[in-house]
Amino acid sequence: MCGIFGIVQAESSQSLGLPVGCLSGLAVDGLTALQHRGTESSGLVGADGVERQHMDIVKGHGLVRDVYTSENIGKFNDSVILIGHNRYSTSGKKSGINCVQPFVVYTAVGCVAISHNGELVDAKKKRLEVLHQGVGLSTDTDSELIGQMIAKAVALNYKCRRDHDPGDISRELAVTVSAFSTSYSLLVMTYDRFYAVRDPYGNRPLCVGTIYNSSSTEALAYCAASESCAFPSTAKLDFELQPGEIVELSKNGIKSVCQMKPHTPSAMCIFEYVYFARNDTIMEGQQVQTVREACGKQMALEDQIEADIVSNVPDSSTAAAIGYSIQSGIHYEPCLHRNPYVGRSFIQPSNELRVSAIKKKFGVLKKNVEGKRIVLIDDSIVRGNTMSALVKVLREAGAKEVHLRIASPPLRFACFMGINIPTREELVAANRDIDQVTQFIGADSVKYLSVEGLQHAVQSGIDKSDTKFEVGHCTACLTGNYPVNVDF
Amino acid sequence: MCGIFGIVQAESSQSLGLPVGCLSGLAVDGLTALQHRGTESSGLVGADGVERQHMDIVKGHGLVRDVYTSENIGKFNDSVILIGHNRYSTSGKKSGINCVQPFVVYTAVGCVAISHNGELVDAKKKRLEVLHQGVGLSTDTDSELIGQMIAKAVALNYKCRRDHDPGDISRELAVTVSAFSTSYSLLVMTYDRFYAVRDPYGNRPLCVGTIYNSSSTEALAYCAASESCAFPSTAKLDFELQPGEIVELSKNGIKSVCQMKPHTPSAMCIFEYVYFARNDTIMEGQQVQTVREACGKQMALEDQIEADIVSNVPDSSTAAAIGYSIQSGIHYEPCLHRNPYVGRSFIQPSNELRVSAIKKKFGVLKKNVEGKRIVLIDDSIVRGNTMSALVKVLREAGAKEVHLRIASPPLRFACFMGINIPTREELVAANRDIDQVTQFIGADSVKYLSVEGLQHAVQSGIDKSDTKFEVGHCTACLTGNYPVNVDF
Amino acid sequence: MCGIFGIVQAESSQSLGLPVGCLSGLAVDGLTALQHRGTESSGLVGADGVERQHMDIVKGHGLVRDVYTSENIGKFNDSVILIGHNRYSTSGKKSGINCVQPFVVYTAVGCVAISHNGELVDAKKKRLEVLHQGVGLSTDTDSELIGQMIAKAVALNYKCRRDHDPGDISRELAVTVSAFSTSYSLLVMTYDRFYAVRDPYGNRPLCVGTIYNSSSTEALAYCAASESCAFPSTAKLDFELQPGEIVELSKNGIKSVCQMKPHTPSAMCIFEYVYFARNDTIMEGQQVQTVREACGKQMALEDQIEADIVSNVPDSSTAAAIGYSIQSGIHYEPCLHRNPYVGRSFIQPSNELRVSAIKKKFGVLKKNVEGKRIVLIDDSIVRGNTMSALVKVLREAGAKEVHLRIASPPLRFACFMGINIPTREELVAANRDIDQVTQFIGADSVKYLSVEGLQHAVQSGIDKSDTKFEVGHCTACLTGNYPVNVDF
Amino acid sequence: MCGIFGIVQAESSQSLGLPVGCLSGLAVDGLTALQHRGTESSGLVGADGVERQHMDIVKGHGLVRDVYTSENIGKFNDSVILIGHNRYSTSGKKSGINCVQPFVVYTAVGCVAISHNGELVDAKKKRLEVLHQGVGLSTDTDSELIGQMIAKAVALNYKCRRDHDPGDISRELAVTVSAFSTSYSLLVMTYDRFYAVRDPYGNRPLCVGTIYNSSSTEALAYCAASESCAFPSTAKLDFELQPGEIVELSKNGIKSVCQMKPHTPSAMCIFEYVYFARNDTIMEGQQVQTVREACGKQMALEDQIEADIVSNVPDSSTAAAIGYSIQSGIHYEPCLHRNPYVGRSFIQPSNELRVSAIKKKFGVLKKNVEGKRIVLIDDSIVRGNTMSALVKVLREAGAKEVHLRIASPPLRFACFMGINIPTREELVAANRDIDQVTQFIGADSVKYLSVEGLQHAVQSGIDKSDTKFEVGHCTACLTGNYPVNVDF
Repeated sequence: MCGIFGIVQAESSQSLGLPVGCLSGLAVDGLTALQHRGTESSGLVGADGVERQHMDIVKGHGLVRDVYTSENIGKFNDSVILIGHNRYSTSGKKSGINCVQPFVVYTAVGCVAISHNGELVDAKKKRLEVLHQGVGLSTDTDSELIGQMIAKAVALNYKCRRDHDPGDISRELAVTVSAFSTSYSLLVMTYDRFYAVRDPYGNRPLCVGTIYNSSSTEALAYCAASESCAFPSTAKLDFELQPGEIVELSKNGIKSVCQMKPHTPSAMCIFEYVYFARNDTIMEGQQVQTVREACGKQMALEDQIEADIVSNVPDSSTAAAIGYSIQSGIHYEPCLHRNPYVGRSFIQPSNELRVSAIKKKFGVLKKNVEGKRIVLIDDSIVRGNTMSALVKVLREAGAKEVHLRIASPPLRFACFMGINIPTREELVAANRDIDQVTQFIGADSVKYLSVEGLQHAVQSGIDKSDTKFEVGHCTACLTGNYPVNVDF
Repeated sequence: MCGIFGIVQAESSQSLGLPVGCLSGLAVDGLTALQHRGTESSGLVGADGVERQHMDIVKGHGLVRDVYTSENIGKFNDSVILIGHNRYSTSGKKSGINCVQPFVVYTAVGCVAISHNGELVDAKKKRLEVLHQGVGLSTDTDSELIGQMIAKAVALNYKCRRDHDPGDISRELAVTVSAFSTSYSLLVMTYDRFYAVRDPYGNRPLCVGTIYNSSSTEALAYCAASESCAFPSTAKLDFELQPGEIVELSKNGIKSVCQMKPHTPSAMCIFEYVYFARNDTIMEGQQVQTVREACGKQMALEDQIEADIVSNVPDSSTAAAIGYSIQSGIHYEPCLHRNPYVGRSFIQPSNELRVSAIKKKFGVLKKNVEGKRIVLIDDSIVRGNTMSALVKVLREAGAKEVHLRIASPPLRFACFMGINIPTREELVAANRDIDQVTQFIGADSVKYLSVEGLQHAVQSGIDKSDTKFEVGHCTACLTGNYPVNVDF
Repeated sequence: MCGIFGIVQAESSQSLGLPVGCLSGLAVDGLTALQHRGTESSGLVGADGVERQHMDIVKGHGLVRDVYTSENIGKFNDSVILIGHNRYSTSGKKSGINCVQPFVVYTAVGCVAISHNGELVDAKKKRLEVLHQGVGLSTDTDSELIGQMIAKAVALNYKCRRDHDPGDISRELAVTVSAFSTSYSLLVMTYDRFYAVRDPYGNRPLCVGTIYNSSSTEALAYCAASESCAFPSTAKLDFELQPGEIVELSKNGIKSVCQMKPHTPSAMCIFEYVYFARNDTIMEGQQVQTVREACGKQMALEDQIEADIVSNVPDSSTAAAIGYSIQSGIHYEPCLHRNPYVGRSFIQPSNELRVSAIKKKFGVLKKNVEGKRIVLIDDSIVRGNTMSALVKVLREAGAKEVHLRIASPPLRFACFMGINIPTREELVAANRDIDQVTQFIGADSVKYLSVEGLQHAVQSGIDKSDTKFEVGHCTACLTGNYPVNVDF
Repeated sequence: MCGIFGIVQAESSQSLGLPVGCLSGLAVDGLTALQHRGTESSGLVGADGVERQHMDIVKGHGLVRDVYTSENIGKFNDSVILIGHNRYSTSGKKSGINCVQPFVVYTAVGCVAISHNGELVDAKKKRLEVLHQGVGLSTDTDSELIGQMIAKAVALNYKCRRDHDPGDISRELAVTVSAFSTSYSLLVMTYDRFYAVRDPYGNRPLCVGTIYNSSSTEALAYCAASESCAFPSTAKLDFELQPGEIVELSKNGIKSVCQMKPHTPSAMCIFEYVYFARNDTIMEGQQVQTVREACGKQMALEDQIEADIVSNVPDSSTAAAIGYSIQSGIHYEPCLHRNPYVGRSFIQPSNELRVSAIKKKFGVLKKNVEGKRIVLIDDSIVRGNTMSALVKVLREAGAKEVHLRIASPPLRFACFMGINIPTREELVAANRDIDQVTQFIGADSVKYLSVEGLQHAVQSGIDKSDTKFEVGHCTACLTGNYPVNVDF
């Protein structure tokens, strides 16, 4: 998980006189809208469309709102093109600042910047190859590896580029990325344009759009993003990239420049729907919140339980809970209040006083819970500790029964394509059957959505006529069916 | 608005061996749970039950999670009693650090600490009196004024205190606070106990409770808080203070030590129900979320509109929207996604590109909105700018009709009792009739809950047998009927 | 030890159009020049000459260069008068921010600000009096105590002040300070003027001056400071305050308004010459560096030793070393390099590797030391640990003999008048005779300047015709002769 | 200018049980002692002697004392070898954090770290070569360029390394550095050893030493540094590297492993003696302070002036002033006090009030200056602005005559070997004869030391028998005679 965003000023907009700092402001807004995809660090790189040997960079650890200031953003006053990146901490440890993307590399044709969302399953082998070719690497990031391979391709091709548009590195980029199977959605920027690349499996989302002026008649800028929610309100979502597609965005507009042979069916990560993407994002033509409501409905279809209320775990599972309520006819009523201000706990637990972080984070709406049979909906369970504590809290508040319904199938396998799932030992469902999970959680009953149910909820809303290739989804973390061979 | 919290270790708990740092940890947790009442600054003061000339203090600007660290909280390792305060910025400007409460003052009987929630309507006159008595003041806070008056009372009474328990300042406190009408809920601490004081109008909430060990048999600590949501999960809400009541909390328990003549009917701020209090707080015996749902239901009863969906403005008006949906039978469906990560905007507005902060904060669930007639519920409207922008966003996303329903009456008058309402010029409803408000907002229709409807929703759930005095609510900001004479 | 500085714009300067921010800039420069008198914290308070109920305040911990920023200094753009304070940490612990001076207090006639250098020997008794009069105190600082006493005096006198200039509190100030014997140099500011006060013993220095425009014809501002080195280069030192003198500085100039009965002879702290004051300060009409050179010469007169070089401990004892060299005819040659960048040490000492902080701070000039008999001059010795380490370092570098000469008498007694001298147990000379000190330090010989020698060096350069009263110096820390009775 | 330091634990020390954290503590101390060579940023890299794929890194902007904390230094608890770097800001702009050295690069044989002092005159050409070989560069630093060339050499040689000690990259290092003429002193570290490299011109200093236990019998660690002042007090300076020498430091000791053909005569930067090096450093066998005193003496020999006092500009020119005083027989007396606490100025200059930063930084000892003819010694003049202000200050304080003597020849040419000299336009002496300089400065007379005089002062103290090759010094900035061809 990570979020990427790129923007380039349209030629026509120059006559319209976009205010100074507008483009970088839009870029910061785009990254803010993608904050849910990564909160460890953020970076932006800008180029001025003329100078090839210099790009401006702002990077930092923490939230977008803390990394960018009106002072440092001033660096981008001359930028006509920017790409950015929000990093998700996969290890829990803060990475060194030189691992913060976008990664910038000087090559024989000037600076190239790279933003990467995903995880290259072939990275380890490729990395050794590069090192033995005599190229040093300064980080262990996939984006540096890609950068060095582009630098190599550019140098090899240097003589043939004589009459070439200097900012055009589409051929070198295609050569480089075709060395990798999955998973990557990339933005690659030269001094005057950037490329959006989606891997042949379509594992991570990527879309492009046009920002219009307020009367919607003239294009001001073109942009690309992990999710459509990153586009400003005056933008139009032009299209989502096909698996294996490379698109060029420049002042002249959006142009598809390459289509690698896609893997069929495609293998977009199904957990984007379950957990990662923002409710208001349009993905494969459908609204994520609608899919989540459909998951809740499907769960109700697969379920028979008598209860007084359906409730959610704020804020992630509200859509599924509403869907379940509609389908089951059981009244939707919140039973938990989430405190958005919680920090770390200073209390050492003791026998006398069991105070858990969960209880600080969630307050119980006692009057809604007392004497009730509750269907509690969550989107997924990882380790099960939070849910176990919540069930206990509800019982202490007087709940008569707590029936847990998970709007996705059990998480049982590791992901090697960019999602930080704990090891199998830690996954509550990896080594437990449903009775054991129920006992661990302490609920009256636990039910998961079936894999087929999830696939149905996700795929039934997709307009097949929209896509050139056969649509599929990666369910590896649920089924163990990996779309590629993975070296363990 | 502000949040106050106090805690004192029970005598019995000493044999149980509460871990070091537990008491201050509970205090931080209490302030965290009251964070919604004030985010400008936070402070904690602790005493060790023995030394009268010293209290430990930690104060800082910002959120509770940023003010307290495991390092500075270590100061309280010997504390057996603490009071704290979260400050709400009334002016928008950050106050000096010496205005951060609790306020600590050395007096003839040792240190006294004060946490104040409310605003003294008689402060200006009293302040002049004190200055002309030859007492200098170092801030313009009400809490320092109260502190100096206690110091004076203590010195006057010093000789009569000979055989007196040195930490007992109940008489001096009663003399001091009886000089003020409203509004104040106070915590006042000496070296071994603290007092909870609610003003004779009961304008601000205040309650006390007991924290038990996990088997709920022995009291570990006694605490007081603005709202019951601040008590840990092993606590029992003992009672809410009567208007004019003074309660002492010490290692020996909770004891009512004084009952000032209350104003009847009482005048608790009705906006606590509408806006301030947390959903899971119990106030006047009822759950705040339930009252808000009742407001939504009442709104539906007062309304006749045909629509496709009822929706909320996340997260504040969810309860009212659910109530409206239940009563009206119109389907509840969210239409806005709130981004919790927004920071400041770097874009200067231009004609070409209308980008508003509102659109960054809220994403639209387009598929839920397109072609729909929407009843949009909010809890209140102040200036109307946010709502006006939201209505525009919904229309751009394809909404057919947007009918705004406010689950409280129009805000038309200033508050002089602690709530930061803008001047009348800024209040959208102060100088506009309903048609003008509708036009300003740009909705198809706007309706407010009636004052009687709000009072009914608030008061019908109160168990009158629970209260000694006649129950009433201050509606000054809605009606202009101030419970006291106010010098303008 | 502390440093105080005040400045008020001259009436004439208004026509000259001093640039905005100039006055506060001069105040920051003045405090910067006084940084050696206190590095724990710094504060500035400004008034605009019109508004009596408000003063602007900037305070912070750390160095002047870190406390003031171009942003916070902007608060003073309307100020026509400012007083400031640098605090010396007497305890090693950082004080709370509300102890950072100047202290500001609202009184019946408006705001009053106080900067205090010194330590009131009568504080404890006076403090109890004030508390029992019913006045609360929020800190344990002398400046708050003085502030409350001024507030009291102002209120008592309020009715008689009818026709009075509202900013004039000279009478009330005189009443207040006459309650204290020593030690204090004070700046006390109202909205349009400030007072400089020196105690009847003259224990701490204080002087006033006029800042001229570059052609030295028109007064731009009037200022007061602990030392003349704080005045800008275009200023003229007008005079040093007499013991017991109160001077008013306003837009109309500098005016002596009160002369309390002085203690004779006066008792200025002799350690100001030995250690505290800056070399380029003029004190009692003489340059401090000249006095220090005289101390070195006197030391040489009292000494007979054969040696190859005279050397200093950089940077404090250079003047004394030069004086010694001139008088003795022994060549001056540095033997130590001081590293200005040292921070804390990360090495835990072990037997194998004796690395001391001293060796990090000082590098040895080996080629100057090898085989040499060295007279090493220092200005004073407190605990003796640094000197002991330095002697060892010099021996390791090949010094043949190291003879330590201290240009002041042994420190043997505590100071109760504002200087932070360790307890007697820690003072190397308090309980050791000269042989024991020599052994402790490890030098070949140790000699101190005699008390008479120091007094001679200090007093022989004073122009007696300049002073109205008999000149004397407090030598309590050297002789135990305290100028006042001190409650131990 | 930059400072480099490296340290490796001796095998024997392991039995002696060096405390954990001792080695990194010594490294921080070494960098602290080299702080004068660079204050922009600092970095340390450590390896544990076993793991080849990982090095620990701590880097930051600012002073050594701010970059390293007891927390981050804990990373090095397992390190048995560390190299570090202090960076001098050549441009005034703060470099990006990934430019902070040491630079770490993964290669085919594991991690390699590089600390570089100097500036490669051939960098631009070499850089293009590398880019066209298809290697991307992420910074514009010389150290990354060297790192990539080592990575290349290592990969080319990979097969031949079969039976090779994996940490030994001496051959690859020799191949790499021989591609560059000057200027570089390098430390290059693998997982278990590091190399010290001095360029064939000997342009930058570099020396190695052994740290003994306190009884000086057993080696605890081996270290290398830009200057001998970086070694702890229990260390012995073993030798200074010959021009073109490569030395290996490992747990087994210090071993010369390669001697590149040196340029004769050598061309060590003569400005190290004039300005950069620390007074207590031993360079070419002589103490820097002694050389500076010799420059002062030589200046006096070349001069005939009648004056009352010789004075210095603190703290840089004290040694030269003492030398001049000894030779001329004119009394040495300070006339300026330097305030170590100055920060930025907040005052906008105006006609009415000329306040310069110089006057804040230096206080005048008026009594020493009044009526005196002063010989003011400085070590060098760059732009002349400071000196011009100082002369004015001395005159205002009453100086009768001010004769400026510079203990080095006029700076007239740019340096391309690592010293940040302003462009010729800014150098006061580049386009002015001595009369014009005198007029610009405003002194009564100005004299510089002759080039021959400086060379004599520097070279007469060198023991020629100590060096294998002919000794010479680079005087390019004074004479325009560059030791290599430089592409302008």
